[in-house]
Amino acid sequence: MSLTNASPEEAARAAKVSSRKLATLSTDARNAALDAVHDALSKGRGEILAANAKDLERSAANGEISPSILKRLDLSRAGKFDDMLKGIADVRGLEDPVGRVDLRTELDDGLVLQRQSCPIGVLLIIFEARPEVIANIASLAVKSANAAILKGGKESIESFKAISTAISKALETTQVPNDSIQLVTTRDAVDPLLELSQYIDLVIPRGSNELVKYCQRKAHMPVLGHADGLCSLYVHLDADKSMAVDVILDSKCDYPAACNALETLLVHEDALETILPHVASTLIAQGVTLRCDERSRTALSKHLPEDPSLVLQNATDADYSTEFLDLILAIRTIDGVDAAIDHINTHGSHHTDAILTSSKEVADQFCNGVDSACKFWNCSTRFCDGMRCGFGTEVGISTNKVHARGPVGLEGLMIYEYRLSGNGQGAAMYGSGRRQYKHKRLPV
Amino acid sequence: MSLTNASPEEAARAAKVSSRKLATLSTDARNAALDAVHDALSKGRGEILAANAKDLERSAANGEISPSILKRLDLSRAGKFDDMLKGIADVRGLEDPVGRVDLRTELDDGLVLQRQSCPIGVLLIIFEARPEVIANIASLAVKSANAAILKGGKESIESFKAISTAISKALETTQVPNDSIQLVTTRDAVDPLLELSQYIDLVIPRGSNELVKYCQRKAHMPVLGHADGLCSLYVHLDADKSMAVDVILDSKCDYPAACNALETLLVHEDALETILPHVASTLIAQGVTLRCDERSRTALSKHLPEDPSLVLQNATDADYSTEFLDLILAIRTIDGVDAAIDHINTHGSHHTDAILTSSKEVADQFCNGVDSACKFWNCSTRFCDGMRCGFGTEVGISTNKVHARGPVGLEGLMIYEYRLSGNGQGAAMYGSGRRQYKHKRLPV
Repeated sequence: MSLTNASPEEAARAAKVSSRKLATLSTDARNAALDAVHDALSKGRGEILAANAKDLERSAANGEISPSILKRLDLSRAGKFDDMLKGIADVRGLEDPVGRVDLRTELDDGLVLQRQSCPIGVLLIIFEARPEVIANIASLAVKSANAAILKGGKESIESFKAISTAISKALETTQVPNDSIQLVTTRDAVDPLLELSQYIDLVIPRGSNELVKYCQRKAHMPVLGHADGLCSLYVHLDADKSMAVDVILDSKCDYPAACNALETLLVHEDALETILPHVASTLIAQGVTLRCDERSRTALSKHLPEDPSLVLQNATDADYSTEFLDLILAIRTIDGVDAAIDHINTHGSHHTDAILTSSKEVADQFCNGVDSACKFWNCSTRFCDGMRCGFGTEVGISTNKVHARGPVGLEGLMIYEYRLSGNGQGAAMYGSGRRQYKHKRLPV
Repeated sequence: MSLTNASPEEAARAAKVSSRKLATLSTDARNAALDAVHDALSKGRGEILAANAKDLERSAANGEISPSILKRLDLSRAGKFDDMLKGIADVRGLEDPVGRVDLRTELDDGLVLQRQSCPIGVLLIIFEARPEVIANIASLAVKSANAAILKGGKESIESFKAISTAISKALETTQVPNDSIQLVTTRDAVDPLLELSQYIDLVIPRGSNELVKYCQRKAHMPVLGHADGLCSLYVHLDADKSMAVDVILDSKCDYPAACNALETLLVHEDALETILPHVASTLIAQGVTLRCDERSRTALSKHLPEDPSLVLQNATDADYSTEFLDLILAIRTIDGVDAAIDHINTHGSHHTDAILTSSKEVADQFCNGVDSACKFWNCSTRFCDGMRCGFGTEVGISTNKVHARGPVGLEGLMIYEYRLSGNGQGAAMYGSGRRQYKHKRLPV
């Protein structure tokens, strides 16, 4: 690991070469490297926090970044440094994702095919303010035997240097090749890196929607992630009223800035006066602004104790395609599950969509029809998360239609390879009038 | 299925909309559609072959295409039509790839996560001369519940129309939505189609290297396939001589124009005079031209009965990066397995590479070090093939590092989705001092 002034191409080539050596290291060798990284960051806490304070001071002084980004940058916040260390220990404790055999077939006597998991190769991680991502991604890369190129934002440059120096020194004492984690701080390195498809196999942007969209548009290699998280929830006429209040409150208000927060509420017309008023009252009490279509506004106006003109707004078409990331909810009246499916497939972002209904049949119809990574029935959209889903870590949430979809754990950093071993067989030995393949599935 | 004059955008949008309906059809409904397609093509044989004859006549007359492409275009060749029909029946007989559950986790009491396979959505298949690909891909799409846009080449236009009309009429009698197979014959439709990432999820080019490279460069969505198949085989010093002759002969000569044919032979320096001469004699007898580095040429000159200047050529650097697709083999002397790995990772195309050795340890070292989709030990590179590997069909061979790699069966047309069912849970119920996740793995 080296904080280089190397060109993007040099860094990428070096990562590619070392990725092959990294791919051959044992589980123990990779876990020992994670222990070394954990210890080094633990011992380097004072220096890292001092460097981070410089970033905070400079960023606050030049006023170029928002308070929320400043908060993300701040490693001295209670528990944040310990969480970073715990994250490394957690990743170390995960089962080794390398070399898992998931298919064995005897093609013929003594000709055995095996499919096994292996690292993808070289990951390019582009991140913005949060400096702890360096440690997080470096540990995911080492665990999964992928080389990684880390490209950080300028606001976290001092923290980046301090953390990376500590990690670099730690890795030098291990079998992990030095070049397998490359750090790039050069300005304007992103565009050249996104073109180096001969060296870089996968891009993972960790930051704003704009960053993700930029990478998706520019990258010559696959990009893992999602730009938008426009999650919808459909309340069917037979939904449980109290459950609707709880689940919608959690989906909208638990963390409104998250990609898995609720943005659009679809309400069956027969639930407008029975369920929606209770939901609306609770949301309004939490400070949520409701942007309603005409029918839902009319229904709520009859049932809300408040003056509706103070708490309800008229929804525009654009509101149904907007990820508010704020205490705002678009509400639309729907005449049934098919219309809900159509609305979601047209306006949604294929991330996470939910239904509230007491009918398994209706829930299945909804889940079969909706084209999203995650389809939830009678629970909050906020469960779309790698840790909550039990993956032990989260590389990101993907709305891609190939490779990895939904909350992505370590598996998303793996691909597979085929190994075939024989004793001299050739393809010309097989066919009509010759030997026949056995294709016998063997236990794995 | 309609052979439309629709714009690329209209065709793609229609495919996307109908893909959601297709995704909800039962196994039986999709298999019934495959039966109908099979019957229709069987009954339409006369008309289809008449249309194909027009294509052949026109193409032969205007002299624009090569004899080998003319041969690919010809559906009247012995067995070809029956093979097409058998292909549909074979695909119909495969296990349904939709809805396979591969993960179930109880996150908490009554909160169960399930991961299950589902179609990707909309495939864009671009193919050149071979008209039977229409039937092949249409049946793969129906089986896997993916909508497909088929873009054929102008040389097969009449065959394309005849086959597609038969398939279209057949599908009209089934539950498969008409729009789920779109046929595009408009010239210049490729570029606009490759930009429609909002509707098209995956591109599968079936044709020349140039077509594949063009799609990889231009597509705004993932491309499945491989441009080059530069396969190498390394002969370690302890390889079995007779096995070396058999395996190298098969790898090189069984079908030299295939992507899995051998292009570069790496020979350990201690095998130059013991094994290589036997291999070379056999290859020369089959008409293979050998392009040798200096050491291998010197060794062969001593041992070959023929005048070496007549049968050996000097290799240039470019020969080690060339996919000959012909009876030409580049030969290079190597001082050990590490050098073989380096050569292959630098010059190869990450498709299929093989080693001949009697040592499992050396074979493992080779397989761990080589960065290719397929790593073969003591058998021919020609086994890299979906049918031979027992996948029942082959969508293509992929050198991608994400999603699908190596020979790709129906699985490559699938992705997965998460379904979570609860009874009112919200994320705020969990955490420090609150409920804890159980993350109990359930049987699938």
